[in-house]
This record gives sequence, structure tokens and C-alpha cells, in this order.
Amino acid sequence: MEIIQSTANKTIKNLVKLHQKKYRDIENKYLIEGEHLIQEAKEAGVLKAVYSLSSYDVGVKNVLCSQEVLNKLSQQNSNAKLIGVCKKDETPTFPCDHILILNDIQDPGNLGTLLRSAYSFGFQKVILSENCVDLYNSKVIQSSQGALFHLQIQKRNIEQWIQEAKEENYTVYATALHDHSKYLNEICFQKKTALILGNEGCGLPLSLIEQCHECIKIEMAAFESLNVSIAGSICMYKAFIQQDQTE
Amino acid sequence: MEIIQSTANKTIKNLVKLHQKKYRDIENKYLIEGEHLIQEAKEAGVLKAVYSLSSYDVGVKNVLCSQEVLNKLSQQNSNAKLIGVCKKDETPTFPCDHILILNDIQDPGNLGTLLRSAYSFGFQKVILSENCVDLYNSKVIQSSQGALFHLQIQKRNIEQWIQEAKEENYTVYATALHDHSKYLNEICFQKKTALILGNEGCGLPLSLIEQCHECIKIEMAAFESLNVSIAGSICMYKAFIQQDQTE
Repeated sequence: MEIIQSTANKTIKNLVKLHQKKYRDIENKYLIEGEHLIQEAKEAGVLKAVYSLSSYDVGVKNVLCSQEVLNKLSQQNSNAKLIGVCKKDETPTFPCDHILILNDIQDPGNLGTLLRSAYSFGFQKVILSENCVDLYNSKVIQSSQGALFHLQIQKRNIEQWIQEAKEENYTVYATALHDHSKYLNEICFQKKTALILGNEGCGLPLSLIEQCHECIKIEMAAFESLNVSIAGSICMYKAFIQQDQTE
Repeated sequence: MEIIQSTANKTIKNLVKLHQKKYRDIENKYLIEGEHLIQEAKEAGVLKAVYSLSSYDVGVKNVLCSQEVLNKLSQQNSNAKLIGVCKKDETPTFPCDHILILNDIQDPGNLGTLLRSAYSFGFQKVILSENCVDLYNSKVIQSSQGALFHLQIQKRNIEQWIQEAKEENYTVYATALHDHSKYLNEICFQKKTALILGNEGCGLPLSLIEQCHECIKIEMAAFESLNVSIAGSICMYKAFIQQDQTE
């Protein structure tokens, strides 16, 4: 079996380009790292190849490489063991009652963590605005812990999307400090719930807030704001618990 | 007024060493970045000097530097504007009912976010195990949004600390999947509450879990675990809300 020893190898050079969004978009592929994600990607049917130090059989093409080559493919640490190549897939569509909408989330860790929480709390569909950080950024994938393989994720214009969601009888909730904001503990989430979170620095624009049915603020002892992935996850947990108790 | 132009300047070289924990420990100092943190540090009385591009008067020594020098001091981006030098302070002590205990948290973003949530939800005291990531790591400080300036934070042996907390009538809660774990929604947090969170990869050791009064698991639709800062923040929010409703 061939072992790729050189970081100058043409295949490796092309794969390294996938560290950049531009090439992920052109090639329709992205890299993942580590056994957990590779297993999740395999189950989701998006895994195309595995690059590894020693033989790793997961039913897709397996290419052996030197440690130096794996480190070149990795964006995480200096001791990479397994790198997977995935193809961007058509996201499945299925009906779901709880939807998360993310407007201009910039931090990859926040986006990944929100996907992980969304999947954990039964928000099976996620809508991303055009200006969100790239879904296939390595930190997003890593902190999602593979949740992105299970969710319906769509990139959309949020204003338009809200209009459509209202026509489909979703109640749309914004998380924002606003004159009409209600405390989370007073919110009774409806069966069809869409929850919108805004950018880390500047929150949601007023034009979006005004389109929503309700505005949520989280009770706090001090400070004015929480990390967006914390605020979003607390709201999703609450909606999940309420639904669980109603059913 | 003197302007430091060279990254080879001796003062600058010594400040750059504060990027490493070893030197923060020796010098008992650390760096912070950006206006928000500098204001918070000033109010907390720990700010000693500000290095800036143009004059910045906040009542402490102000040193002007070139952009190149500021970038050398920064650990965040290539366009740093304000760097503050703080001294590690004796943490204040005051009685408080809700305490967060962090055992071997490794990710700086998680530690910082947990401090921000702790302060937001009235957990005014935080106990760190010896193996937690350094509190004065720049990412910890940044993601805490300055919460570390408001909290009582102590480094302790967690097993010993739990014994003392029990003697002071704290009810000690672990977050862990365990035979006896109760769902969060069934937990009635006591007035004196200590909440323990474990390491990102391996959770809490059984020896610590067994010392706790109750073990909490969070209701989920899918997956087995949440990000530790999410799990911890949801528990702290719940404890805060319950206390708020009792008072």
C-alpha cells in the first residue's frame, strides 16, 4: 500500500486548500478530524476518504500518510491521527416543530456549540444567515461534535424566512433586550417554535426584532448579556422541557 | 511623551513574556486587551498601566507605542488598540450562597464563558482545581468579559474543599451521568448550593461524584453530552431562577 511521505504531494496540496472556505465552496468538500467525527460522517453517508498513519477501515478509501503529512492536513494539533474528507451534502428535509435561526454568528466555537445544543434539544432545523461563519470551518465542525451531520441546515435570507415561517404558523421568538422583552421564565413556547439569535457583538437588528411575535430576555443577577451560545442553549432547553411536559 | 517604536524595547520584551503562564506566575501580572476589559479592570482596582496608540487617560500610567509594538503585545488580532497590564490580586472574600466548582476544565473559552455565566447568575464564588487552565490566559479573560474581576476565585484541592463545604451546610451537586442522577427539572436547589462540573473529555471522577449529595443529568432529545459551559450555565440559570422565586 502506498504511503504518502511528502507534504509536496499534489493530492495533499489540494486537500490543504480545503482549509480555506473559497476552495471548500469550489470543491464541495471539507475536512474533518478524529475518530468520533469520522464515525458520525460515515453514518451520515458523507465520508469519502480517510487519511491515516496506520490502516483504518471504515468502508471508504483509506490513504496512509506520514505524521508530517497528517499534521499538514490538520488544523488542530501537532499529532493528528485521522483526517477525513467529506462531501457537502444536500441537507435532508423533514418536518420539524422547533427551528433555530442564527443571524450573523461570527465565532466558529459559538456556531458549533449552538448546533450541538440544537440537536441535543430537538431543534432539528437550523437556518443560517448569509453572513454567518462558514459551517464547514474546522472549529465549527469540531465544536458541533458532529451535530451538523444530523441537522437540516439551510442558508437563507432571514427576513424572507421569517415571513414564510409565519405563514406556516410558527411562533417566532427573538432573544434581545427590547422594550417589550419578556423574561424567559414567563414564556410559554408554542408547539411550532422558531428561535432567532443575533450576532455576538451587536445582537439582532431592530428590523428583525420587529418581525418577531415575542422578544425574550434571560433573567440575570449581574451583567447585561450572556455568550450567545449560552443564551440560545438556555432558551432551547426551556422550549424542549416545555414540549416534553406537554406531550 | 515617549513613544515606544521598537519591539526590541526591553519593557516590551518583558511584557510579551506574560503571554506565558510561567512568567505571569513569576511577575504576578497579566495582560488584558480592549476598552471594555480595561474599564472593568480599572474599576476592580487591578489595572496598573495602559499601552496605547494614542493618549488614553484612565488614571494609570499610559505608554504610547507603535502599531507594531501593540500587535506584539496582543494575542488576539493584528490591529490591537489598547493593552492593559494588571496585577494578580488577592481575591476578595465575602459570604455567598451559590458556588461553582470547576474540576480540570481545559479549554480557555469554556472557563471564561463559565465565569461570565457564574457572575450573571449569582454564583459569586468559583473554586478551580489545580489542573484547570490558567485563569490569566488571554482567551479565558476575553471570554469571561471581565467577570473574573468581580468573582471570588480560589484554586483548591476539590476533594478537601467539598468536605469543608459540607461542614458549612452546602448541598453539593455534581453534573454527571450516573446511576443515581436525577433530571435537572426534578432538582430543587437548596439555598446554599455548590455545583461541580468536570473535564471536557472525561467528566468528573467517580471519587468526586460519590462525595456529592446529588447528581444532575440534563434532559436531552439526542446525543449524550453537552458542552460543559452549556451544561453548567443551564444548571446555574435554573438555580438562580429557583432562588429568585423563593425570595
